[in-house]
Amino acid sequence: MPIDLSAVGKELEALPYNFTQKDVMLYALGVGAGADPEDLKYVYENNLVALPTFGVIPLVPAVSSFMSMEEIQFNPAMLLHGEQYLEQKKHPAPVDGELVSKPKIANIYDKGKGALVEIDVETVDNKGDVVYYNRIGFFIRGEGGFGGEKGPEPGYEAPDREPDEVVELETLPQQAAIYRLSGDSNPLHIDPEFAQMAGFDKPILHGLCTFGVAGRAILRRLCNDNTEMFRAIKVRFSRPVFPGETIVTEMWKESPEMILFRCKTKERGEYCLTNAAAWFNT
Amino acid sequence: MPIDLSAVGKELEALPYNFTQKDVMLYALGVGAGADPEDLKYVYENNLVALPTFGVIPLVPAVSSFMSMEEIQFNPAMLLHGEQYLEQKKHPAPVDGELVSKPKIANIYDKGKGALVEIDVETVDNKGDVVYYNRIGFFIRGEGGFGGEKGPEPGYEAPDREPDEVVELETLPQQAAIYRLSGDSNPLHIDPEFAQMAGFDKPILHGLCTFGVAGRAILRRLCNDNTEMFRAIKVRFSRPVFPGETIVTEMWKESPEMILFRCKTKERGEYCLTNAAAWFNT
Repeated sequence: MPIDLSAVGKELEALPYNFTQKDVMLYALGVGAGADPEDLKYVYENNLVALPTFGVIPLVPAVSSFMSMEEIQFNPAMLLHGEQYLEQKKHPAPVDGELVSKPKIANIYDKGKGALVEIDVETVDNKGDVVYYNRIGFFIRGEGGFGGEKGPEPGYEAPDREPDEVVELETLPQQAAIYRLSGDSNPLHIDPEFAQMAGFDKPILHGLCTFGVAGRAILRRLCNDNTEMFRAIKVRFSRPVFPGETIVTEMWKESPEMILFRCKTKERGEYCLTNAAAWFNT
Repeated sequence: MPIDLSAVGKELEALPYNFTQKDVMLYALGVGAGADPEDLKYVYENNLVALPTFGVIPLVPAVSSFMSMEEIQFNPAMLLHGEQYLEQKKHPAPVDGELVSKPKIANIYDKGKGALVEIDVETVDNKGDVVYYNRIGFFIRGEGGFGGEKGPEPGYEAPDREPDEVVELETLPQQAAIYRLSGDSNPLHIDPEFAQMAGFDKPILHGLCTFGVAGRAILRRLCNDNTEMFRAIKVRFSRPVFPGETIVTEMWKESPEMILFRCKTKERGEYCLTNAAAWFNT
């Protein structure tokens, strides 16, 4: 199925996301928050604060229409979430109301084995202010070789020295079952038969759930849970995580404003998030 | 504040509860389901089945109006959930749509130290069939001595022999934070300061959450997770449980259709649910 490079620059329909405080709390529980006393403000409506990585949730309805573009036709089973960059541009983020997301095809790269489609999404509040900016990288297996540019390397390699900080956070065996109630109900993350058809021994955790766990680790260790400090985070989804595994986040302080990091599963030692960085407001 | 016995027999306004499959799944996660493969049907929209104890959820909106009855005035801080009887009268239960609950003040007993107000609630589906019948026992501390009848003893005492079955089920440290998203957002279950004002060292688990955990234990061990077998369950809420504790359910088989049971916390050995029984369709 063809990739038509004329899709680059095309805007998808802006779509609203209506949410309540319950959605913000459910997201936090979905990424494993709620067990520690420090998590109270993420899971309780009294002075509720949205975890910064909640910023990937409001764009789900708008980005879904990417699946039905004429210019980019593909087998949905070949789609992988490759990369995610999220920036929180307004603090504090709202904990209820309406946010509108405006997706735009930013780039399409020819990676040989597949096509990398990058989508930029601005998510604005009812004052027109941009609250979140996301860049999503979708990797479509089997759709490479169309003669496009190769694009930049992922970058943000982990340094060849011991990490400055290491944080371990457990996930629950039912973590994916909770996380999926925030909107991504892909059966790959809960249905054993579906997961086997997709080539996995068992259901895998959502990449964006692991992303949220890593965000919590960084927020706790380096921001003392002050969400105002959290500016941006970027990851590459390298390997699957199974629900119930412990996520080990290794961090290297590059400057007061920026870290490099990567995540592995404690149980298998496989790096699941790589080429990763976070930026802080100082 | 006075208890007026003329309240007995009075019907409260019937109120609807509108729900989706997501609510049914969230409830199951709230009572600790989702970690075992056998739980899949309770937390996944593909062939979703409602846990029988979900039947206590649809009546929350209707029963709340009991708090503002003229005939039964009391300080809400003195209210305890004393007992609960739930019967599922129609199988399978719906997993979305609308259910209407019709509460009625069934009895008011004078227990000396307080008043026991029993409320009967029929919950009907859109065909008019009764899906759930609940009897709720609210204990209002400090409102006894008004000269009413003492009422029956709670009954269903645990036998003086070793239990026939014992099941241990863990709760999560964040169990109350998940459970409360099903509708009971009393801060007693999440807010450390509020819990201390109410006389507890820390937030306690919802009694109906423990009730749901006990229901899961019985359903797993004695019904092989066949919800059609589950007819009714009755408990008395005797002692608090803290989130993260393990619930030990001890069961005595009295007949093919009925068991006695009680629950304790593994960590402290305190019996939290007593005077308890369950009934099966055979």
